[in-house]
Amino acid sequence: MAVSDPIRWMRQAIRLSKRGFPAPNPRVGCVIVREGAIVGKGYHPYAGAPHAEVMALTQAGESARDADVFVTLEPCNHVGRTPPCADALIRAGVRSVAIALRDPNPRVEGGGAERLKEAGIEVSVGLCEDEAKAANWVFHEAMFRNRPVVVLKAAMGLDGRVALPSGQSQWITSAESRLAGQRLRAELGAVLVGRGTVATDDPSLTARIRGVVNSPVRIVLDPEARLQGSERVFGPGAETLWCVAAERATEAQFPVRMGADGVDLEALLTQLGSRGVLGVLVEGGPRTITGFLRSGVVDWIVLFIAPKLLGAGKTWVEDLGFQTLDAVLAVSDVSVQKLGSDLMVMARVPRPL
Amino acid sequence: MAVSDPIRWMRQAIRLSKRGFPAPNPRVGCVIVREGAIVGKGYHPYAGAPHAEVMALTQAGESARDADVFVTLEPCNHVGRTPPCADALIRAGVRSVAIALRDPNPRVEGGGAERLKEAGIEVSVGLCEDEAKAANWVFHEAMFRNRPVVVLKAAMGLDGRVALPSGQSQWITSAESRLAGQRLRAELGAVLVGRGTVATDDPSLTARIRGVVNSPVRIVLDPEARLQGSERVFGPGAETLWCVAAERATEAQFPVRMGADGVDLEALLTQLGSRGVLGVLVEGGPRTITGFLRSGVVDWIVLFIAPKLLGAGKTWVEDLGFQTLDAVLAVSDVSVQKLGSDLMVMARVPRPL
Repeated sequence: MAVSDPIRWMRQAIRLSKRGFPAPNPRVGCVIVREGAIVGKGYHPYAGAPHAEVMALTQAGESARDADVFVTLEPCNHVGRTPPCADALIRAGVRSVAIALRDPNPRVEGGGAERLKEAGIEVSVGLCEDEAKAANWVFHEAMFRNRPVVVLKAAMGLDGRVALPSGQSQWITSAESRLAGQRLRAELGAVLVGRGTVATDDPSLTARIRGVVNSPVRIVLDPEARLQGSERVFGPGAETLWCVAAERATEAQFPVRMGADGVDLEALLTQLGSRGVLGVLVEGGPRTITGFLRSGVVDWIVLFIAPKLLGAGKTWVEDLGFQTLDAVLAVSDVSVQKLGSDLMVMARVPRPL
Repeated sequence: MAVSDPIRWMRQAIRLSKRGFPAPNPRVGCVIVREGAIVGKGYHPYAGAPHAEVMALTQAGESARDADVFVTLEPCNHVGRTPPCADALIRAGVRSVAIALRDPNPRVEGGGAERLKEAGIEVSVGLCEDEAKAANWVFHEAMFRNRPVVVLKAAMGLDGRVALPSGQSQWITSAESRLAGQRLRAELGAVLVGRGTVATDDPSLTARIRGVVNSPVRIVLDPEARLQGSERVFGPGAETLWCVAAERATEAQFPVRMGADGVDLEALLTQLGSRGVLGVLVEGGPRTITGFLRSGVVDWIVLFIAPKLLGAGKTWVEDLGFQTLDAVLAVSDVSVQKLGSDLMVMARVPRPL
């Protein structure tokens, strides 16, 4: 006997999942339904916290017996910081488990779904798969590529400019855009800027939003160690990697390899990946953004476009060295949404192999 | 007895109206329905052609008697190039007339709707009014302001750039965007560029699309008369106004008043309005666009944004002279749609009184 309205329950689980900022873990939401009502719900709030299924099972208690479970990602079958969720579901005696998405993590092969089925639980896979993937896009991109996802973020006027010639640049975009920018930092788990942005704007680069427990790592490219170390980005609130050329880095700094045009970004991303960084939001300035684009290590750009014309000043990206229009950088998968009075445009950047 | 499904018929009339490019006249569509079926339909294809109601009545013939008429704009009650449509509807013996929108043209006060009602015809006003207005936005903006509507158009990459430093600029955007640009020319009835665009790109500035009979007037700002007169824009296909400072204009040229910063654009728009120009699409280059913005005579901007990064070269708007971010030009009513692989962004520019 199938539960009625399964899409409604799975969508609720997906919505729940978005409350969490568990980078480098995936977002997961879980809803347990019995006799047409929710008896337990949960999500994975932050890395190190209980998994969504455990939170939901705890809430459901005895009501979980013979109940129907809707979970956005395949329950884990391995012992990590917590015992496997598949076992917890089996012990609770649930009747069925609907899974939106198989776990792309190679460690899970074998996996939670098969284990549940072997235990006699009715298992389905694929309900609302696309929506679940969208809620978890950072994780999926990173898994698929086996290295951190790189997202460029810029806030600009309708003329592409980020600052007036005077250098005045902060607060171009709306409060909604700034909040979305902070959510992106937390979703990706790391934020990166160049020395110039720290010297000019002195941002703290924290994600001051509800639900963020593990603050995103802050990464500052300063190969020549010209910053003081007393700027806000080095202050409390989150870990900071002060990236300095290896040959001159002190112990408090993060040694990086240098390439022909500054920091070797491929090597840096490999270093970050091995530290468990899921994704990096590159926030500027234009020179740093241009360096990332020139290095061919960018996966997405996210542009917050304010309904303003600045008319003069820097644009968000600088010379990419193209001589002909055939050669310019073509992006794809463009999506756009309104965000308060701003537009938010996302586009995928093809990466050279 | 009311006709069933009136919205359906009015929407059909609105769709029909968009086939026409009758600037400086309004777009009008008309559908005549009898016993649940269309017996006549028409639209106003170009200035000088029969009105929509007359086209529909001709097609309906005797079937128009006791039929229901759906027309997107109040039928005219004055003798222009054609006899009044209100009289034609009365003579045909129609039962009812649904009008989406009252005619904002001051000459019509009195108007067609009242005349129909006096003749015993059932008249309603306001069905799908917003949709009818949107289909006819240029006309309504111009009527409301009593001068030509000024729309800036630019085609750019996601970084606001319109050309590479080499000057190469054509075909940045998709075929869909270029078609939309040509439709805008025809809807507005006039297209304007500066001397630089003619010298660099040598465009013909025609609207080579189906349904355009009266080609939009081409306006070239060349106050010092530095062009040859042999460029494509002066060729066949449409009328061209070669705008040259009054004191040096020859008879083949269009004399314009000069202001402190080049052509006096307010005065030019007044001249164009008195020639019956409904709207002007200002297509560039950046210097001309910037001049229009600085003069405060712009009503809308339309940006076609290609999914490309140029990285260097001119941006679509140049220095507007702002010193602080509080002072930059804020636009409003931003809308965005996808157009092939491009985005089309429209925004209203507030005009100083």
